[in-house]
Amino acid sequence: ASGRVYNFSAGPAVLPEPVLLEVKEELPVYRNLGTSILEISHRSPEYAEIDASAKALLRKLLGLGEEWHVLFLQGGASLQFHQVPLNFLPKDGSADYLITGAWAQKAYKEAKFLGNARVAASSEDRNFSYIPDPSTWELDPKAAYLHFTSNNTIYGTQFQTEPEAEVPLVCDASSDFLSRRITPERYGLIYAGAQKNVGPAGVTVVLIRDDFLQRRNQPLPTMLDYGTHAGKLFNTPPVFAVYIVEKVLRWLEGLGGLPAIEAINDRKAALLYERIDRTDFYRGTAEPGARSKMNVTFRLPTEELEQRFVAEAKQAGLIGLKGHRSVGGLRASIYNACPIEAVEALVSFMDYFEQRYG
Amino acid sequence: ASGRVYNFSAGPAVLPEPVLLEVKEELPVYRNLGTSILEISHRSPEYAEIDASAKALLRKLLGLGEEWHVLFLQGGASLQFHQVPLNFLPKDGSADYLITGAWAQKAYKEAKFLGNARVAASSEDRNFSYIPDPSTWELDPKAAYLHFTSNNTIYGTQFQTEPEAEVPLVCDASSDFLSRRITPERYGLIYAGAQKNVGPAGVTVVLIRDDFLQRRNQPLPTMLDYGTHAGKLFNTPPVFAVYIVEKVLRWLEGLGGLPAIEAINDRKAALLYERIDRTDFYRGTAEPGARSKMNVTFRLPTEELEQRFVAEAKQAGLIGLKGHRSVGGLRASIYNACPIEAVEALVSFMDYFEQRYG
Ligand SMILES: Cc1ncc(COP(=O)(O)O)c(C=O)c1O
Ligand SMILES: Cc1ncc(COP(=O)(O)O)c(C=O)c1O
Ligand SMILES: [Mg+2]
Ligand SMILES: [Mg+2]
Ligand SMILES: [Mg+2]
Ligand SMILES: [Mg+2]
Repeated sequence: ASGRVYNFSAGPAVLPEPVLLEVKEELPVYRNLGTSILEISHRSPEYAEIDASAKALLRKLLGLGEEWHVLFLQGGASLQFHQVPLNFLPKDGSADYLITGAWAQKAYKEAKFLGNARVAASSEDRNFSYIPDPSTWELDPKAAYLHFTSNNTIYGTQFQTEPEAEVPLVCDASSDFLSRRITPERYGLIYAGAQKNVGPAGVTVVLIRDDFLQRRNQPLPTMLDYGTHAGKLFNTPPVFAVYIVEKVLRWLEGLGGLPAIEAINDRKAALLYERIDRTDFYRGTAEPGARSKMNVTFRLPTEELEQRFVAEAKQAGLIGLKGHRSVGGLRASIYNACPIEAVEALVSFMDYFEQRYG
Repeated sequence: ASGRVYNFSAGPAVLPEPVLLEVKEELPVYRNLGTSILEISHRSPEYAEIDASAKALLRKLLGLGEEWHVLFLQGGASLQFHQVPLNFLPKDGSADYLITGAWAQKAYKEAKFLGNARVAASSEDRNFSYIPDPSTWELDPKAAYLHFTSNNTIYGTQFQTEPEAEVPLVCDASSDFLSRRITPERYGLIYAGAQKNVGPAGVTVVLIRDDFLQRRNQPLPTMLDYGTHAGKLFNTPPVFAVYIVEKVLRWLEGLGGLPAIEAINDRKAALLYERIDRTDFYRGTAEPGARSKMNVTFRLPTEELEQRFVAEAKQAGLIGLKGHRSVGGLRASIYNACPIEAVEALVSFMDYFEQRYG
């Protein structure tokens, strides 16, 4: 639609424009209901249909069998940092954590608060600019799970391949969920705040394999027990957020699902890294073997130039390019809903900017 | 707008139509941002403005001084059932609960899971059709707090006056929040799922007085510690839900705030109860001294007639009238955003229905 800019925000992040136009169209009346989707009971057939459709689409896109539970929870990925160990860290056992960034650290902190969480590997020594080589991981074969952050939103690194471990993986996939194919068999649980790759802020997608779910600690506070939410709506879900997620999933399926989006994401990332590498003016901060296809972090020769870049890019209709406040520099988040045209426009702007200030 | 019906849903519930039209207008581009409100960082100045405005409006409407913290959390009122005792039920102390309905019971259950929670009074003996008289309450003057459910959404009862106790009140105000004036001094904490009186599903408003906050247990899991959220955004809030809450609050202030809405709510409830009482065909289920001005529960002579009532009302453009699945009968939820015209239309339909089937 007219007046839309290219949005590289790290999250909440750009949504597919057709989804937004559908939402607009469905206000203030959804279908023939005489009321909007915001105003109906979560026990209504209309919401049940949305909930079921979103769950079916997730199963289909990821190839999840019946042994998987699909949950739409609240509290963000941050609440999962607590809920995962509360459910799955045994009183007399331990869990392993791979520390590859600030979010992984926070997840580890909450686990340690509850019990015996171990650092299996960390890349903190070089400011989280890489993913530790699996040969260096100190894995405990008796761990209840191995937790990792598949994509490190802040530092612009990403696991290039899924970890291999004897124990079930638990993955914070907040910033690369549904951006590429995965191997579900390796996982016990996958969680993702929706606001990067799959919807707006306000819903957290949680996938749990049933045999893993059955191992959880008991008893637990009702709302924090994953079992409470498996297979039923216990309390009021974040209706509107799930409604948008369902539309985003349909959009993704329409594109061709994960193989298709993976190819598109590969092209977008290649374009941008190629531009960064072409000259010394731009400098990628993640080590080449660990580069994220979702969050592309880079620096310019000076902080002053970086500020100017952000400001002039905004004038040129490219927003959300400022790096995370904890690391500085630039960050272009190029999630699923970021069109290749946005990346092309950014690359052109980078050319122009270097010509002018380089 | 054309095509809108009268919606008596218990929650998620009707929203003010001007709010919905504003939301529609602001899609897919919010102001001059070039992107929608769904797609921008929660650290952006634009969201900060919404967050601050919503909090300022809540303070103004309720007359809250600087000693109050205003929080927008996730997880629904149901997560508060756990979070309240986790923070405020001391290991070596206790808390009192007034059991006036299914939600109060659930709150009590979560508290008992964590420690010493006491039943100070209960109306379960007559199916929660009344509010126990304060003279019968067995209050512990050493309790950390007295928890009550100001309005019992399912049973259609409501505290006619605020409890008096030596200890701070903790109130689940989910279904009558901002429907009438309150006396903030009596409370330590007030929480409300937004989806009845103040917005869409997906955000829970929590008000905490600072001196009460300071008494909380320590240490706590980060996300469940109210202190984490007091005065700052710790993680991604449910942006869109807060954005709507802010609009609803502005709408409420525009009407004249709590004194004005209280008068309107009094009129709506009086109209409906007057009709119920006029003939024997309709029978209110709450004892007259405990009647809710938000959820008006009533029965017809037979279940068959009740089903017919729901079906024919829907045909007549009056939806959401079915009672809660756990109690049956009819329930008209007439929250703030339910216009008096809706109640008038319902009363007319009740006249017609009784003439035809009475
Ligand atoms: C990888 C990762 N994990 C967790 C979070 C925290 O998510 P939330 O704000 O939904 O709690 C983020 C947010 O940016 C993230 O990128
Ligand atoms: C009084 C009251 N408390 C708590 C709840 C539960 O709220 P939620 O579904 O947001 O957890 C409800 C929901 O109807 C309610 O009416
Ligand atoms: Mg990170
Ligand atoms: Mg370079
Ligand atoms: Mg109730
Ligand atoms: Mg009567």
